[in-house]
Amino acid sequence: MNGLMQDRPLLISQLIDFAERHNGGTEIVSRRVEGDIHRYTWAECAQRARRVANALDAESLESGDRVATLAWNGYRHLELYYGVSGSGRVLHTLNPRLHPDEVAWIVNHADDRVLCFDLSFLPLVQAIHSRCDTVERWVALCDSSRLPVDSGIPDLISYEDWIAAHPSRYVWPSFDENTASSLCYTSGTTGHPKGALYSHRSTVLHAYGSVQPDIMGLSARDAVLPVVPMFHVNAWGIPYSAAMVGCKLVFPGPALDGKSVYELMESEQVTFAAGVPTVWQMLLSHVQSGAHSFSTLKRTVIGGAACPPAMLRAFEQQHDVRVLHGWGMTEMSPIGTVCSLKKRHDGLSADERLRVLEKQGRAVYGVEMKIVADDGRELPWDGRSAGELMVRGPWIVRDYFKSEGGDPLVDGWFPTGDVATIDADGYLQITDRSKDVIKSGGEWISSIEIENIAMAHPAVGMAACIGIKHPKWDERPVVAVVVRPGAQVTTTELLDFFRDKQLAKWQIPDDVVFVDTIPLGATGKMLKTRLREQLKDHPWTT
Amino acid sequence: MNGLMQDRPLLISQLIDFAERHNGGTEIVSRRVEGDIHRYTWAECAQRARRVANALDAESLESGDRVATLAWNGYRHLELYYGVSGSGRVLHTLNPRLHPDEVAWIVNHADDRVLCFDLSFLPLVQAIHSRCDTVERWVALCDSSRLPVDSGIPDLISYEDWIAAHPSRYVWPSFDENTASSLCYTSGTTGHPKGALYSHRSTVLHAYGSVQPDIMGLSARDAVLPVVPMFHVNAWGIPYSAAMVGCKLVFPGPALDGKSVYELMESEQVTFAAGVPTVWQMLLSHVQSGAHSFSTLKRTVIGGAACPPAMLRAFEQQHDVRVLHGWGMTEMSPIGTVCSLKKRHDGLSADERLRVLEKQGRAVYGVEMKIVADDGRELPWDGRSAGELMVRGPWIVRDYFKSEGGDPLVDGWFPTGDVATIDADGYLQITDRSKDVIKSGGEWISSIEIENIAMAHPAVGMAACIGIKHPKWDERPVVAVVVRPGAQVTTTELLDFFRDKQLAKWQIPDDVVFVDTIPLGATGKMLKTRLREQLKDHPWTT
Repeated sequence: MNGLMQDRPLLISQLIDFAERHNGGTEIVSRRVEGDIHRYTWAECAQRARRVANALDAESLESGDRVATLAWNGYRHLELYYGVSGSGRVLHTLNPRLHPDEVAWIVNHADDRVLCFDLSFLPLVQAIHSRCDTVERWVALCDSSRLPVDSGIPDLISYEDWIAAHPSRYVWPSFDENTASSLCYTSGTTGHPKGALYSHRSTVLHAYGSVQPDIMGLSARDAVLPVVPMFHVNAWGIPYSAAMVGCKLVFPGPALDGKSVYELMESEQVTFAAGVPTVWQMLLSHVQSGAHSFSTLKRTVIGGAACPPAMLRAFEQQHDVRVLHGWGMTEMSPIGTVCSLKKRHDGLSADERLRVLEKQGRAVYGVEMKIVADDGRELPWDGRSAGELMVRGPWIVRDYFKSEGGDPLVDGWFPTGDVATIDADGYLQITDRSKDVIKSGGEWISSIEIENIAMAHPAVGMAACIGIKHPKWDERPVVAVVVRPGAQVTTTELLDFFRDKQLAKWQIPDDVVFVDTIPLGATGKMLKTRLREQLKDHPWTT
Repeated sequence: MNGLMQDRPLLISQLIDFAERHNGGTEIVSRRVEGDIHRYTWAECAQRARRVANALDAESLESGDRVATLAWNGYRHLELYYGVSGSGRVLHTLNPRLHPDEVAWIVNHADDRVLCFDLSFLPLVQAIHSRCDTVERWVALCDSSRLPVDSGIPDLISYEDWIAAHPSRYVWPSFDENTASSLCYTSGTTGHPKGALYSHRSTVLHAYGSVQPDIMGLSARDAVLPVVPMFHVNAWGIPYSAAMVGCKLVFPGPALDGKSVYELMESEQVTFAAGVPTVWQMLLSHVQSGAHSFSTLKRTVIGGAACPPAMLRAFEQQHDVRVLHGWGMTEMSPIGTVCSLKKRHDGLSADERLRVLEKQGRAVYGVEMKIVADDGRELPWDGRSAGELMVRGPWIVRDYFKSEGGDPLVDGWFPTGDVATIDADGYLQITDRSKDVIKSGGEWISSIEIENIAMAHPAVGMAACIGIKHPKWDERPVVAVVVRPGAQVTTTELLDFFRDKQLAKWQIPDDVVFVDTIPLGATGKMLKTRLREQLKDHPWTT
């Protein structure tokens, strides 16, 4: 017997309708590629999103057809989020930091029919457009006065001309909430990129999950700055969750240096910001070097990579900004966990609190998780047992676009490729990537733990730990280190530094290799495969 | 084209699983009918809910079969919430304040197969059991030592014996999220009660909506006291939203007097409480008469009836407790709107803030609303135009159980029967019930506005305004007043009191009728139909 409740699908178009109706006067502020600051409201955003939908109708795009973007965080990108998905097409956010060959491969794999790009990416588009056969319409995100002449891109039109030709009246279609809404490719370190194809249902449920007080805690009273790019898993869903709660949005455009981000935070009275550790490091350096302070910023969610303890301490203790350390994946829309304290932590000392906050936190409602041993056996939540993290839930992929890479699920669970512990309070701690964990004498050594300790040494600028084949122990850890400019350190000093750091003796690296750089992928992740290749002839030492 | 996200249904069983896994050690504290305080945890609640599911299997209850409760807010009731719905049956919460004949009628209409009751309601059960043919199993919510002997109720069993016979191991079934989960009858002022049949989907979505920062703002750090009964629209969904966020729950049992509620708040460090104005009046009277203060209470959601401005002021200004004035209906699961301030209200004076907070607030995401004129034309959101409020959304009914009363929807919208204004910021203000609004000379007069003014007079204990037939103006307002014990007031004084109160002259009542009591329904709502009958021969005066 079914309940007798209304059959209203969860649709992305309802988010922009809701924002327009209930918070239509609330501001959206963007630093533009053009260099200036643009201001308007949710109501104007909604009107222009409907023009986008009409423009797509005029291009004869079918439901499900892909519209790609190569764009920074800004109001036009936001209009595309709603105009494309709301009208039943699929928004495909491309990562402009990838190699042009890879961008072209992805455009072709996705069969993108329209591609909208910020002028910053004109050279990239010029490099790939002749290889993108499926793209029928190239749109430059600018007005006609800035449209490049002789760009070589056929029939290039400015976004402003493109949408101005169409009315702002449009009735959003209603359809099954499982309809595809958006597409984001993961940039794996091996093989071709794979596309996560989100649905309207998954997007709205993810927004519901993420605005909760213990997760992002978003309210109509917030001014939210997503520094995390809108081409990076939909800026962690903020374009949607912001519409759900009707907060002010502040977009940084291409200016992600510390000074620009800080000044935007102050001038727009930002209360909540979201970013990755590397960008926040630039922000903190700027703030600290100038003896500035945050006058309105209250909370920041940090994810994409583990938040270094020193960064956590700087935000929490020097700047009185609550850090929400998060963990997620492109395949998870992306939020899996966020670290917020429980009532029972109230009595902890400042240092004890920080140790909890260093963990990746608790699952958002909607994400189920478990950790399993090599043989698939579920491991206890004791804060010590480390196993591969498996997840399931309505905003987690069950397959990749065009089934690239085969069925990813194991008994209905998505294997994250992360190794983690979970404690009795449900706090997750990522200890490694499963492919990076070092297996020594039948035990696991966390490469991340080693790297975090190395990074705490004042002379170390960057550190990467990998396993080196060993005749007796299978693998032994060796740490590759980039020395900070002007600093100096010896192998002996560094190996001594690992003592008294809560490591067992057998977990301490056998050797240090000094390198001038550690290979990084397009999203800033260390390419340990390449490092392993470099160090494959390293002699074992113990 | 569909997205490629996991097909995980939204189920109530996941809520209790999540609470057990992530917040298993968090407390649930209940003042029992037995008089003592009972404490246990979400983990123990989950285990016992699974025993309930096994007990229902043993009774051979089919999926969709109804299990009724006549119970106060307490841990056993909570276990039934999860054990019954989680296993695919329908939890039917009966309102014990109804007349026994009406309770019996509802039990029969719902075809309840099991009925679980607190011992407080033994006399009620004794009065009706012989008329409840569909009920095969009567369960007293106590242990065997307290099971009444010679109760006259066939095969009466104690709840503790009933569930102790079954294991705490149970695998919750998976099924379509639209499956019915729970049933609650509205006690209309006319006609038979009608059942709202909620689904798993509507219940989980409602929980997602209600925990948002601008709605209830619930967190794992809260200790939540639902004084609103679990037989009154599922205590506004708190049994579900509390599991979603993993907060501490505090149940008051039958002791709803001001002293008991206050002492429980203090001893259990309650941070958030939910109740109706009449119960909060008792609480405030106790607190004020004893010069007590709230040491941990931070927020209270007040609904079920309009929150009197004096109550709002007392909580906000004297006790520094944020009032979340809400509006909802049984047909809406129940939350429609909650009043929380926007950023732009920061500059308001204390009095101006209170005037915003007196409104019923902004729609929770998931509820769409509009106001329409008599001819169905949509009215503007200008804070002045009053029309019938229509709502739609996934936790709003599309029909009543067994289609009682015919199709309630109008073009897909549920007519609330309330008359309201909505301002440009989306703040709803209920001005009347549509059947109570007074139509005078083609204009509408809000009976509630008149009553609120009358109630502000120190001599007035209760006031009800109705329209009296008038040969020229169609209807004219007359206010029935109960004078406070020991106070005195004249008609002239009271009519004068209406001047300078932001009423147009034609909105001021024509007359005052002093009565010793105003007829109330079972849920405390004024029965204006009966009052109209009493006053139908009242002479028109102007």
